Amino acid sequence: MRKIGIQEIEDIALGAALLGAGGGGDPYIGKLLAIGAVKECGEVSLIDVDELSDDDIVVPVASVGAPTILTEKGVGESEFDRLLDMISTYYGKRVTAVMPIEAGGVNSMLPIAAAARLGLPMVDVDGMGRAFPEIQMVTFSIGDISASPMIFIDEKGNLGLMETVTNKWVENICRAGCTACGGSVVSVEYVMTADQVKEYGVRGIVTYSEELGRTIRAIKNCPEGMTPEQYFLEYTKGYRLFKGKIADVLRETRGGFNFGRVVLEGIGEDKGGEAQIEFQNENLCCTVNGKIVATAPDLICLVDTETFTPVPTDALKYGKRVLAVGLPCYHLWRTERGLELVGPRYFGIDTDYIPVEERVKELV
Amino acid sequence: MRKIGIQEIEDIALGAALLGAGGGGDPYIGKLLAIGAVKECGEVSLIDVDELSDDDIVVPVASVGAPTILTEKGVGESEFDRLLDMISTYYGKRVTAVMPIEAGGVNSMLPIAAAARLGLPMVDVDGMGRAFPEIQMVTFSIGDISASPMIFIDEKGNLGLMETVTNKWVENICRAGCTACGGSVVSVEYVMTADQVKEYGVRGIVTYSEELGRTIRAIKNCPEGMTPEQYFLEYTKGYRLFKGKIADVLRETRGGFNFGRVVLEGIGEDKGGEAQIEFQNENLCCTVNGKIVATAPDLICLVDTETFTPVPTDALKYGKRVLAVGLPCYHLWRTERGLELVGPRYFGIDTDYIPVEERVKELV
Repeated sequence: MRKIGIQEIEDIALGAALLGAGGGGDPYIGKLLAIGAVKECGEVSLIDVDELSDDDIVVPVASVGAPTILTEKGVGESEFDRLLDMISTYYGKRVTAVMPIEAGGVNSMLPIAAAARLGLPMVDVDGMGRAFPEIQMVTFSIGDISASPMIFIDEKGNLGLMETVTNKWVENICRAGCTACGGSVVSVEYVMTADQVKEYGVRGIVTYSEELGRTIRAIKNCPEGMTPEQYFLEYTKGYRLFKGKIADVLRETRGGFNFGRVVLEGIGEDKGGEAQIEFQNENLCCTVNGKIVATAPDLICLVDTETFTPVPTDALKYGKRVLAVGLPCYHLWRTERGLELVGPRYFGIDTDYIPVEERVKELV
Repeated sequence: MRKIGIQEIEDIALGAALLGAGGGGDPYIGKLLAIGAVKECGEVSLIDVDELSDDDIVVPVASVGAPTILTEKGVGESEFDRLLDMISTYYGKRVTAVMPIEAGGVNSMLPIAAAARLGLPMVDVDGMGRAFPEIQMVTFSIGDISASPMIFIDEKGNLGLMETVTNKWVENICRAGCTACGGSVVSVEYVMTADQVKEYGVRGIVTYSEELGRTIRAIKNCPEGMTPEQYFLEYTKGYRLFKGKIADVLRETRGGFNFGRVVLEGIGEDKGGEAQIEFQNENLCCTVNGKIVATAPDLICLVDTETFTPVPTDALKYGKRVLAVGLPCYHLWRTERGLELVGPRYFGIDTDYIPVEERVKELV
């Protein structure tokens, strides 16, 4: 157990925004929520899942909906209480700890705000090791753990509870409800016992996000003989995909998601080339000079070429210079069941999944 | 208390289909559900609300969604149990009786099926005295009774619970959820104590539907010196609006509703004239030769010119001969709060509400 205060929040937000792979929401909004809660209610205890008894109840807290909309709606203070009260009524058992469902600017922060306000510890684990757009896209689905009962609440105080036959049905119904509520809600789902979290969770993700954030912040002080870019790639175990200037951004909010495509015009050693990245909240497929170089579930991350700060899909702007990097995903995503959930074909990308480390061999 | 068996079901379905004012779903589907349940589980006890103690819990059971779709989806057997279990978990109290929320081909029948399968009595009352398309459109809303918690279930077994800040928000979120589930769900809402039902319910509506059905069935045996049409109008206290042949039907399923318009070409004494009726599940506005002759909340009913059988909006067919009749609505709908909920302007019809008995004076 260790304490999460304001500096830790800053670092976690920065690192998780990178792991968000373009999605997971604006880290600035996320930080405001978490820092506000910690200032008001005190620091949060971050615990390892092994510190819990097997039958303790752990709940992920997350926002559902288009991050662009969350920016306008925010999250109030009483929502977490109502969500947890509902869970306790439903299970007849109190919740022991909260956890993030994914890494990302908002959804790595919301559980910190919830933990602070509820006086509960947060577990150092998530269900993706990155961010994904849909509710069923968690490692827990691979373990046949039910997303139900899923409970959501909006900023007006409207609350919905779903109990569905598959996790994809939670996604379908909740997404429709979320859209009816204005496009963004706060939710709990995958209410689990600690032993389930131990088996399927991506362990240590909060601590990794924090270290990643700290590394990005200090990137200029990289070891001698290395450029910041080299150090960044080495530290993240990432693959350089393309460096370019944003030449075009197509964006559409549809069915509660941010869909779109960004076009990069090569700069530096990529001068004369072109890359395209398609996204649905998160970056899904990166094509360089007509050839696919990375697809989901591997992470496709855009970072500022100078500061290596991650650039989420809702902050893409004409003229910005970015480096596109591919990071290998969590190993469970590369299984058959994992690829059914989050492989390229699920997202309508007509290609088999080939790990990024294989695909990039053709780049050189 | 009296028993509802197969003959009563036949009559109630017929009468309630008339009060459905074009909506409320196909009486044939409704009857199948109710008769199937009664055959399997025995007759249902119909009770007056005064037979209940003030704090007994009464729940309306209804289908939400486009009646056209319900025809294809049907209702299984375990849904009612799950809905009631959820209510009991939520309130910590068992449900004493069920009731219809509205009069209509399906929603007057579904509570009979539920009562039979659950072994509970049904109360002789509803919340409309007719059918309306949206969930907040009940006399209970006039009495500030909450529609929450509203619980719905689909035929696949997906369940949703809404707890909202206004009754209109139940409508918004549930309608979106219903659409996500395929366009039709079974629900309970307005969970009430018997004293609330006593104050705001439309009493005796089941018995009235049954008598109305029996009268329509025996319309050929009308008193001497009267035509069946005269007797029908006298018995229903209805106003003759127009008689015509269906010349055109425009129909669209959108946002979980059946929207549309039917055009009638005058026959008999209306020869040479034209009438139009707009609907959203239910008939909302009737225009004869360019002049509005009836609007919601008054009932606009189309019946077969020979048999006086009601013709719901989803059974409108080119060439069918129908009589359009206007029936005065329940008195609470004519109050200021009533008209805010279901007056013509709510439905986008740009006219003040004028009672049908006033409007038809201009017809002659």
